[in-house]
Amino acid sequence: MLGVPPYSDTADGLYRAYLTPAYCAAQEAVAGWMAEAGMAVRRDPAANLVGRYEGGDPSAPILLIGSHLDSVRGAGRYDGPLGIMLGIEAVDALCRAGRRLPFAVEVIAFGDEEGSRFPAAMLSSRAVAGTLDRAALDIADADGVTLAAAGADIAHYLEAARPPGSVRAYFEAHIEQGPVLEAEGLAVGTVTGIAAQLRYRVTVSGTAGHAGTTAMDLRSDALAGAAEMICAIENLAQRDQSDLVATVGAIEVAPGAANVVPGRVDFSLDVRSGKGSRRDRVAAAILECCEDIARHRGLRLAYELLHDLPASPCDGRLMDLLDESVAAEGFPVRRLVSGAGHDAMIMASLAPTAMLFLRCAGGVSHNPAEQVDAADADIALRVIMRFLEKMADDATA
Amino acid sequence: MLGVPPYSDTADGLYRAYLTPAYCAAQEAVAGWMAEAGMAVRRDPAANLVGRYEGGDPSAPILLIGSHLDSVRGAGRYDGPLGIMLGIEAVDALCRAGRRLPFAVEVIAFGDEEGSRFPAAMLSSRAVAGTLDRAALDIADADGVTLAAAGADIAHYLEAARPPGSVRAYFEAHIEQGPVLEAEGLAVGTVTGIAAQLRYRVTVSGTAGHAGTTAMDLRSDALAGAAEMICAIENLAQRDQSDLVATVGAIEVAPGAANVVPGRVDFSLDVRSGKGSRRDRVAAAILECCEDIARHRGLRLAYELLHDLPASPCDGRLMDLLDESVAAEGFPVRRLVSGAGHDAMIMASLAPTAMLFLRCAGGVSHNPAEQVDAADADIALRVIMRFLEKMADDATA
Repeated sequence: MLGVPPYSDTADGLYRAYLTPAYCAAQEAVAGWMAEAGMAVRRDPAANLVGRYEGGDPSAPILLIGSHLDSVRGAGRYDGPLGIMLGIEAVDALCRAGRRLPFAVEVIAFGDEEGSRFPAAMLSSRAVAGTLDRAALDIADADGVTLAAAGADIAHYLEAARPPGSVRAYFEAHIEQGPVLEAEGLAVGTVTGIAAQLRYRVTVSGTAGHAGTTAMDLRSDALAGAAEMICAIENLAQRDQSDLVATVGAIEVAPGAANVVPGRVDFSLDVRSGKGSRRDRVAAAILECCEDIARHRGLRLAYELLHDLPASPCDGRLMDLLDESVAAEGFPVRRLVSGAGHDAMIMASLAPTAMLFLRCAGGVSHNPAEQVDAADADIALRVIMRFLEKMADDATA
Repeated sequence: MLGVPPYSDTADGLYRAYLTPAYCAAQEAVAGWMAEAGMAVRRDPAANLVGRYEGGDPSAPILLIGSHLDSVRGAGRYDGPLGIMLGIEAVDALCRAGRRLPFAVEVIAFGDEEGSRFPAAMLSSRAVAGTLDRAALDIADADGVTLAAAGADIAHYLEAARPPGSVRAYFEAHIEQGPVLEAEGLAVGTVTGIAAQLRYRVTVSGTAGHAGTTAMDLRSDALAGAAEMICAIENLAQRDQSDLVATVGAIEVAPGAANVVPGRVDFSLDVRSGKGSRRDRVAAAILECCEDIARHRGLRLAYELLHDLPASPCDGRLMDLLDESVAAEGFPVRRLVSGAGHDAMIMASLAPTAMLFLRCAGGVSHNPAEQVDAADADIALRVIMRFLEKMADDATA
């Protein structure tokens, strides 16, 4: 449409990266909506946009509501912005009702959650949480543009850190990015935390051979072995009957020709669970099983741990308040873990956190087909309003 | 070594392609050895080298002994040349003994078996067998050099065809390119024929999803499905307890990221057996099983037939004579199918064929590590001498 600012850095599909023209244009628009909702708006030293709605006691620890404004390439419209907009809508409702909570509410639009431009992620929430090293800012994007050259105020970046105790809670609403709520016919769910994650590179080595001349019983087929392992991985994860997920998402075969028995296979293994102990137990069982399979087949197995992210549990009291808010609006309470990372997992080191997931069509995200029903967003807003009042009650109790 | 002609087109590793300088130099050397062995040497219209050792009856159908002089990139030294050299050695032994067979023996060094230069294979044996179309010669290599520009006599190429009935038999000795003879401690084996081959591209389609947020029971994981299929393919081939081999050598996953549940997998399926009917039966069972797996998992399966090469059985009488020759030299008789293609499979349309496989270290071929023991080559030569005498007996019986 004519006159609509370019909120995307690419013409074909949505892409809005940290500190780009599209990012700045989007920030400008959000700043306008924050002001309309009765907030005092500023840009913090990490280029996050912050709107403040004053509370009864300006010195009381604040409630921070946030999510991120940046996106992946080929993104949908809801991943990130929806959480910011729901925060603004909630404040707008308070403002229109002339309601002040005992504490100030700040809505924060984080700049860099996806890490789709610079070789880092969650830079801006890490700055706010006070967990960022100055050295982490010496980075450049694929075109060689440094963070400083992109417009970040490197000299003052770390001053975005909020003082310990200044934030009573961090709340984030976000699309589920998974199929669970939709499968159960639920609009919203209470997040129990961000899952603990292990990521491995697994290598299976056998002996390459001519596909026509190597008899079946004389093969050391690395791919047949890897296939048995992939089946076992799926089986062990399914048998756990829990929130645990295990995924082989990438696989490479060498030599990789139709007429050659595979001599080597590398595959990724990703294991997540809301409980670190469960994750560790199942990952250990998976690797032991893979070793058994390799031994039986005369293959060699090696694996390398690439990531080990601890679980980031949400706050128990806040989860209860969120559950009560969902129930008070007449909807079934459902708790679920977040398998994906969010700014909330960074903010957990600064304040107790709570997250509300919204149903998204087909569980699809990071895709133009990403879709949230407006009716579900309305339900989420009503739940958030209840949640704010319950927090206010807690603060004055 | 100084003074050794360059029998390779590349300095690092052996590569000798049809009609290159290295090919011509090798042909020159082989021509000299043929002449030393008492043969009249010529180059046929398809640029094959032919040495003729006259028989008792110059008009009797000849015995043709051959293999190929060209190689793949990064080749070993035995694949092809060994069969030519054994033919020359056999004639040399006849010549030194003053022995003439009732029929002439011709040794042929084929030019293009591997198809490693031009987008075609077995051009020169197809010319000799009379199964080549003129149109097949309108090809160029990767540098745009046409077959004609490379030195082929296109105008007369098809005149390399031998008249029907002019060849009593085609015999080829070749390295096994597989591990069977070595595993059984045998120097040589009688080949029953070239296996029939089917090659498919199989596509498994599911639904891509976030590896962290898609619960195990809500996945349509194309790779987990493909892994189950690969296990089933191996199992069905092993259970056949025959010469049948089935191989998944190449696999590609989309999107192919560690944090995404695979939405689509393409893999190759290669099925071979000396018996076309066995190949067809097991291939059908494999595809049916893959369809079952896809159906159970809610995945979509598609497959495309890429190759369908019929079996090329060796001649029963010649196999018996070869077995008798092996036994007469005091070695156990072993028959085995050739999973790989050879010039013999082309020549089968012109004459009865026989092939003798020689043990090669580790079953390795198309690799600098390709290795044949000199002692095994001596055994093969003794078997071939017996075989020639048995053919002579047959011709005069």
